[in-house]
Amino acid sequence: MNDRQPARRPGGRSARVGAQVHQAVTDLIGERGYGNFTVGEVAARAGVADSSIYRRWGSLESLLSDVALTRLNARSPMPDTGSLAGDLRTYAAQVAREITGPDGPAVLHLAVALSSSGRRGLEAGAELRAERTRQLQSMLDRARDRGERAPDTFDVLDHVLAPMYIRVLFGMELTPEYVDGLVDRML
Amino acid sequence: MNDRQPARRPGGRSARVGAQVHQAVTDLIGERGYGNFTVGEVAARAGVADSSIYRRWGSLESLLSDVALTRLNARSPMPDTGSLAGDLRTYAAQVAREITGPDGPAVLHLAVALSSSGRRGLEAGAELRAERTRQLQSMLDRARDRGERAPDTFDVLDHVLAPMYIRVLFGMELTPEYVDGLVDRML
Repeated sequence: MNDRQPARRPGGRSARVGAQVHQAVTDLIGERGYGNFTVGEVAARAGVADSSIYRRWGSLESLLSDVALTRLNARSPMPDTGSLAGDLRTYAAQVAREITGPDGPAVLHLAVALSSSGRRGLEAGAELRAERTRQLQSMLDRARDRGERAPDTFDVLDHVLAPMYIRVLFGMELTPEYVDGLVDRML
Repeated sequence: MNDRQPARRPGGRSARVGAQVHQAVTDLIGERGYGNFTVGEVAARAGVADSSIYRRWGSLESLLSDVALTRLNARSPMPDTGSLAGDLRTYAAQVAREITGPDGPAVLHLAVALSSSGRRGLEAGAELRAERTRQLQSMLDRARDRGERAPDTFDVLDHVLAPMYIRVLFGMELTPEYVDGLVDRML
């Protein structure tokens, strides 16, 4: 119950707090690296009480998992251009834009950190990968349905996504020509 | 000066402390993830005084850079089997063994974390990559000198190292067949 105004839009305040807290986490990871901040610092940055964070997420680790899952799954829909080469080039360009954008490296670091931080993190990492794999698989299935010879999702992970991820994680540049070249070489 | 025994092996105690501190850092990263521990905790784990760590390394970040540089550069010498395919297969198998070994994922996470943690970290990350690139380049140059057609170091990074790094960072398995397959496909 909110004692200042009637709860006309249930979830409105909650959604706003969620977005503020997520942004605070992404900012802090960008500034300090993964793990170098507390729930109290997230709360201060987001302008909410520590207790709001503990009540909703339970722990810093759960909050971090939630941020990674939300950010990496709420991405652009998979492209449907009519050809496999077109779909893969568009998809690779989308991923490149996301991981080099303002919060991209932070979210990528978070995904990597979660994948190696115990049970809850491993689950979050596996869930992330499963969701992305399903989306990618449906794109490759469409190509096969059209009679095109399509790679499998592991080929895309190893030869398109992994090089881009590693270059961003290591602070190297991604040019559009480089990203197109990864797709063309794989096909 | 050590007041218990004559300093017959200069650097002996210092080297031992260095190794203990490095191992303590690697253990703590493996248990807690990068960044989730203090200089005091490293000191307690290594059985040395906090002041020894500050005197020698200055800060936790410098210590972490030193660990990553030492661990990733003190690796097996580059193979020289007489053929490019043999060299690359042996090299890829060595890297796979290192990054899947007891401290491998921790050191890999540390390298990634350093690459994105400000100026000192970026320098350490760049230094790491430059050293590995020089070693790899000399192996590829030998192949060219023998008249073989060799890939460049970026091809090896993108299509052999990056897939292995990403799979280990995401907690996936590396089999010898998979690693050989990456080399064969690139060649």
